[in-house]
Amino acid sequence: MSLLPLVGSDTQVPLLDGTSVTYANLDVAASAPALQSVADRVAEVLPWYASVRRGAGYLSQVSTALYEESRARIGAHVGARADDVTVITRNTTDAVNLLAGCVPGRVLVLDIEHHANLLPWRRVEAGVTTLAGRHTLAATINALAEELAHETYALVAVTGASNVTGEVPPVAEIATLAHAHDARVFVDGAQLLAHRHFSLAATGADYVAFSGHKLYAPYGAGALVGRRDWLDVGTPYLAGGGAVSTASVVGPAEPVETAPPEVELVETPEPIETTWQPAPARHEGGSPNVLGAVALAEACTALGDLTTAELDRHEAFLRERLVVGLSELDGIRLLRLWPDSEEPLGVVTFTVDGVEPAKVAAYLSAEHGLGVRDGRFCAQPLLKRLGLHDGAVRASIGIGTSVTDVDRLLAGVRALLAGEVAGEYAVADGAWTLTHDPRPIAGPAGLNRLADTAGSCGGPEVELVETRD
Amino acid sequence: MSLLPLVGSDTQVPLLDGTSVTYANLDVAASAPALQSVADRVAEVLPWYASVRRGAGYLSQVSTALYEESRARIGAHVGARADDVTVITRNTTDAVNLLAGCVPGRVLVLDIEHHANLLPWRRVEAGVTTLAGRHTLAATINALAEELAHETYALVAVTGASNVTGEVPPVAEIATLAHAHDARVFVDGAQLLAHRHFSLAATGADYVAFSGHKLYAPYGAGALVGRRDWLDVGTPYLAGGGAVSTASVVGPAEPVETAPPEVELVETPEPIETTWQPAPARHEGGSPNVLGAVALAEACTALGDLTTAELDRHEAFLRERLVVGLSELDGIRLLRLWPDSEEPLGVVTFTVDGVEPAKVAAYLSAEHGLGVRDGRFCAQPLLKRLGLHDGAVRASIGIGTSVTDVDRLLAGVRALLAGEVAGEYAVADGAWTLTHDPRPIAGPAGLNRLADTAGSCGGPEVELVETRD
Repeated sequence: MSLLPLVGSDTQVPLLDGTSVTYANLDVAASAPALQSVADRVAEVLPWYASVRRGAGYLSQVSTALYEESRARIGAHVGARADDVTVITRNTTDAVNLLAGCVPGRVLVLDIEHHANLLPWRRVEAGVTTLAGRHTLAATINALAEELAHETYALVAVTGASNVTGEVPPVAEIATLAHAHDARVFVDGAQLLAHRHFSLAATGADYVAFSGHKLYAPYGAGALVGRRDWLDVGTPYLAGGGAVSTASVVGPAEPVETAPPEVELVETPEPIETTWQPAPARHEGGSPNVLGAVALAEACTALGDLTTAELDRHEAFLRERLVVGLSELDGIRLLRLWPDSEEPLGVVTFTVDGVEPAKVAAYLSAEHGLGVRDGRFCAQPLLKRLGLHDGAVRASIGIGTSVTDVDRLLAGVRALLAGEVAGEYAVADGAWTLTHDPRPIAGPAGLNRLADTAGSCGGPEVELVETRD
Repeated sequence: MSLLPLVGSDTQVPLLDGTSVTYANLDVAASAPALQSVADRVAEVLPWYASVRRGAGYLSQVSTALYEESRARIGAHVGARADDVTVITRNTTDAVNLLAGCVPGRVLVLDIEHHANLLPWRRVEAGVTTLAGRHTLAATINALAEELAHETYALVAVTGASNVTGEVPPVAEIATLAHAHDARVFVDGAQLLAHRHFSLAATGADYVAFSGHKLYAPYGAGALVGRRDWLDVGTPYLAGGGAVSTASVVGPAEPVETAPPEVELVETPEPIETTWQPAPARHEGGSPNVLGAVALAEACTALGDLTTAELDRHEAFLRERLVVGLSELDGIRLLRLWPDSEEPLGVVTFTVDGVEPAKVAAYLSAEHGLGVRDGRFCAQPLLKRLGLHDGAVRASIGIGTSVTDVDRLLAGVRALLAGEVAGEYAVADGAWTLTHDPRPIAGPAGLNRLADTAGSCGGPEVELVETRD
């Protein structure tokens, strides 16, 4: 049972055997479908859409109010403190890149992170230390503590939940630790917030970022929420209109006493001066994504209305069913980072002995109508350290996941292990696919081909070493 | 008559006198409403939405195909050459910031540009020259030619159409000129493309950027289209997943011979190496805005289906009616940059003698249900050089504008000049508003206030001079 209605929950997809089946989306950890309430809200708002923070028309006043009200709701959903600021971004990656331009010192991050919480920090002027995760969570926390004692950091960046194993680092504990060393804490909430409630105020964390596309609001907006001071003075993220309070050519003042009938250029080829706005406008140059913000706010409200008990019960039950089911099968290995971590959220990653992850995923799609993720999950350093050079298979559970979905996945994996494979699969253009695919093209009108989906976070390896700097 | 159906074209707004009226959106040059076909397409695609370039599920294959097909259609709409690349961005501001990280030399730009085509270039390592526009277009082109002969430039950035006056610089001529000096040309198509067709191949321009929110597709996506080479090797715009082909911890090779039942971390705290993808993936880190791209592509197709004759006839007729009507009124001054420029597109900016532009806009909204833009249009250097420190009023004509809209604006301005002002207006919090506003709040459900819309591109002036560098 879906906790909340989702758009496309009854979408039918064709199978290799000529039948079709309801798509079971077990890749919501990458991108989740839209909540019906989110789609409805966007449709409701659309006739009122107009320029934001520009123009005095009634609709501009409505749209601006909607945008700012969305900002407030998004901040409230993650327990923003009174003096925190909420910047509307494109997604988590965007938010981390933004914050990276505002950190006034060195950053400490673990190498278990996905790329969005790993690569942007390398742009921080003062540098970043990428610390290896240890074999236990306790040892990892110790390693963080030692590093914080050893060197001065402005920021510790940590995931709210691993996008590979679903394990949840103790954010409040890390915040206390970091604060004791005068460092702040950034929480990558991309994965966490789709599964659990989170509060800056309650955890003591300083910043959190998250994405609409993982939060059942795939309309191109995400957010960065947290302490105002760094954001007020950091590098303006998007140079452009709206981000500056003034940008003018300054010259010897030449007041135009009376403007001519047709106003003409006064030639003053002088230097341009710029005064940047404080946050959030500072980082939101150009016209903002109003619909994206409205969608994200609506999702925050809908998810926020679910109790922690409802969320946990739904997810823990399904995860347990999946993990127990997979554990009973010979040849399946489940990934965990830390034996001493608490119960992970609904992200379960595994390998199938002797079958490449990409082939497993192609098979589960073509013969069972299941969507799972394969590869390295944009967390290549972690997968490499796990010795999984071909990646793994990830099944993720969301608010729309049903017992049937989980059981279909278990049945699919069981069938694969039993050799019940009808199609022939081979690598073509870097992706495992059916060598002969008789399935018709299903999809919205006009679509006349499918795309292969390999390669995004795993392509040819070229060495270009960057050291700890 | 609207050339194409738009969402919200019959939205009613309240007036000061207690009645309500159909909103006349004459601020489409800032943000345009959604085409009905765009909204329909988004709704049609939504049940098929899933992770893009990630996951082997059927819906991921559909969504990825939709995204890439959208990219192709967007490129085709602006006459992309076979070897051009189309990067999906957030908006024009985003696109220019992106390109600014890829330009391998100095940039030349005129100070008549809006901020999106002015401020990002100041981040170019080799520097930017901001050349003052001259009193005539011919003199301005000459000034460009002289500057190109005088110094070496990698890029000339020019607007396709002024967002203040609607004047259209001769892009093909500028491209020929720039190419003769081995410089490339970037066209800011933000304003132009909502009004006229444009082709990279036909003009010889090298790059063009534009925004969905001006192109009747306000779903948070824009595009940068043009030559591949710079984009393939320039600074990756969004560090994160999808933008790298590899990111791995390299250490003394320690192949895990047989993975343990639960795969565990191998401790190799080594430097991280990164290999960035070529464009477009290089600049599209994180999960992309699929719906935004689909919306933009649909708008491109719908607008592309209109003939140049249809577009021009509609717009030239309405613009002429507006300009002639305004010219007949005493106390109205129209803005033009160049007396020798060709017929501008449907963007008409004017001042009303003795009435602050912001008050004009507030009055037209409250007493006539008109949406116009006031202020400095995110083109502060230009407005300052025009001697218009308080800005001006801009009325813009789009595919949805009707004769009635234009006539209502003319009637409103005429009434204002005749002193037919019922409300009392004053400045509060930096914005001109009604001192007593009895209008009820209209808008989508849940909205309980309106926002004032002043300030975005004009706030308190603080001097912070940056020189030509």
